[in-house]
Amino acid sequence: MATLKDVAKETGLTVSTVSRVLNNRGYISEETRQKVYDAMKKLNYHPNEVARSLSKQSTNTIGVIVPHIRHPYFAELISNLESQAYQHKHKILLFNSQEKNEKEWEYLEMCSSNRVAGIILCSGTVGVEEFTGLNVPLVTIERYIENGTAAVECDNMQGGRLAAKHLIERGCCHLVHISGVHGTAMPADDRAAGFAEVCSQSGVEYQVAGTEAYQYNNLEYHEVLEKLLKENPKTDGIFASSDLIAAQLLQVCAKLGISVPEQLKIVGFDDVNIASLTTPPITTVRQPVKEMAKLAVEFLISAGEGEVVPNRTTLPVSLVERGTT
Amino acid sequence: MATLKDVAKETGLTVSTVSRVLNNRGYISEETRQKVYDAMKKLNYHPNEVARSLSKQSTNTIGVIVPHIRHPYFAELISNLESQAYQHKHKILLFNSQEKNEKEWEYLEMCSSNRVAGIILCSGTVGVEEFTGLNVPLVTIERYIENGTAAVECDNMQGGRLAAKHLIERGCCHLVHISGVHGTAMPADDRAAGFAEVCSQSGVEYQVAGTEAYQYNNLEYHEVLEKLLKENPKTDGIFASSDLIAAQLLQVCAKLGISVPEQLKIVGFDDVNIASLTTPPITTVRQPVKEMAKLAVEFLISAGEGEVVPNRTTLPVSLVERGTT
Repeated sequence: MATLKDVAKETGLTVSTVSRVLNNRGYISEETRQKVYDAMKKLNYHPNEVARSLSKQSTNTIGVIVPHIRHPYFAELISNLESQAYQHKHKILLFNSQEKNEKEWEYLEMCSSNRVAGIILCSGTVGVEEFTGLNVPLVTIERYIENGTAAVECDNMQGGRLAAKHLIERGCCHLVHISGVHGTAMPADDRAAGFAEVCSQSGVEYQVAGTEAYQYNNLEYHEVLEKLLKENPKTDGIFASSDLIAAQLLQVCAKLGISVPEQLKIVGFDDVNIASLTTPPITTVRQPVKEMAKLAVEFLISAGEGEVVPNRTTLPVSLVERGTT
Repeated sequence: MATLKDVAKETGLTVSTVSRVLNNRGYISEETRQKVYDAMKKLNYHPNEVARSLSKQSTNTIGVIVPHIRHPYFAELISNLESQAYQHKHKILLFNSQEKNEKEWEYLEMCSSNRVAGIILCSGTVGVEEFTGLNVPLVTIERYIENGTAAVECDNMQGGRLAAKHLIERGCCHLVHISGVHGTAMPADDRAAGFAEVCSQSGVEYQVAGTEAYQYNNLEYHEVLEKLLKENPKTDGIFASSDLIAAQLLQVCAKLGISVPEQLKIVGFDDVNIASLTTPPITTVRQPVKEMAKLAVEFLISAGEGEVVPNRTTLPVSLVERGTT
């Protein structure tokens, strides 16, 4: 098996220069870097990260725990986390908790026994009491944990305000907000608070309809949406707490013969691919997912290096107008 | 720091029983397993997988390389790969190649230097010549590589036949297939072959329209679809090579005032979430993604244990009828 020395010999560089390329330390010209990579390929040399990790008692791997990989919001978030991690020469170990408590604990165990550099825990995963006793940074996205290292959120309150304001400006006067899961305290709950605030101030009639955990777990809302529309026939504006719910709402409207945006206007939340793939495409509140992922990765790495990082950070959202309003 | 011995002492079990629980070897009652887990939690004991990996010169981590995490097909595939890996006590190290050759090589390097148990490479990622010289199993999904360990595909030919047959049965007589990327040989190309075969046999007029790499890379097809519909006004049935393309086609039809399914019938491919989230929902050819993921993980693990595995496996597809036909 080829060694670092062989690579140095092949390139005519010193061992320490080759080592600097591999560890991405100090200034290295693009030409030198390429020379080293070419020699590594030619000699089939693979530095053993596992051995290196053992000596450091840590790896450059970040454990990412999401409730659903297939949910369009989490797919988008994972994609951004992977890109950002890559910028910092880190990799992503991905875990799908699917809301099962026992599975989540096993994941934490796996993260810990693999000596990850840190963990990024995303909204919706349950059971927070287990997160004590971890010796690595724990960064949360759209979720707050008291003993976490850093929480990165979007401005959910502002998002709720923007959605209500927009629907009222478009002439809606019987508003409904379809909120997150009953009985779980999440930053996303502030969407309902911002929405209610603007409705009250404007004297517009509104209600907030909660959803259930099993709907979230199965990504299936058609039944509850149909019931809601039938029971509230005067509704002319709906703010859904995700684009996924908004897309299903569009389907229920088509089934019931309610035309969007003429009879009913809809605003979603997230601005993930599904929002621009429906007909009409969905007006939505855009979460700055890329920036959230960037901060989450940076905080995790900085905290691991012993730096002090903000324990709670909020990023602004914006309204993206499309066909449903 | 707690040791294996401490866990054994705490539970009253022998060290070898605790070790069997941790390595999931032999019969262990649920009660014993729980007792060990409880003691591990209580003592904050984390077996060091990194050290264990070093002695084995391999880890229970599978490197998964996809071109786009955010593409609904790959999000679904990753989700299933993670679940299947979990069944086998393996984890997923996720890489987004986004079609960049140089990035892909770095990923392979990362996989190799982290001593992964194997690599699962998904369709669309480019540059196959680099995959020689790997000492771990390489399983491909919807892609064939001559020196790969195992290729798992769906029956693309059958999918193309099913789509054409269905459109013809519904009365279409001017068919178009929107195929994969020009100039890259992929198993998915057989969709066009199956489609063309049935059209020719039935004497139905058809054409195959290719797409470009930059469209695939940006997941953006609106422009090419609008041009296609304008240049071929008689088209009454389209078979799109992904649900993502079919969803964008629905939007272009709405823009051009073409009613679906009355004037134009559409069949997609994949049957991922987007297919059931549009209005109308998309008739599509269902890939058995769960089963494909299951086989890919099983082949990877078996090959790693020195077993002989099939080097090419095809799974059947099926037609799911929805609103676009």
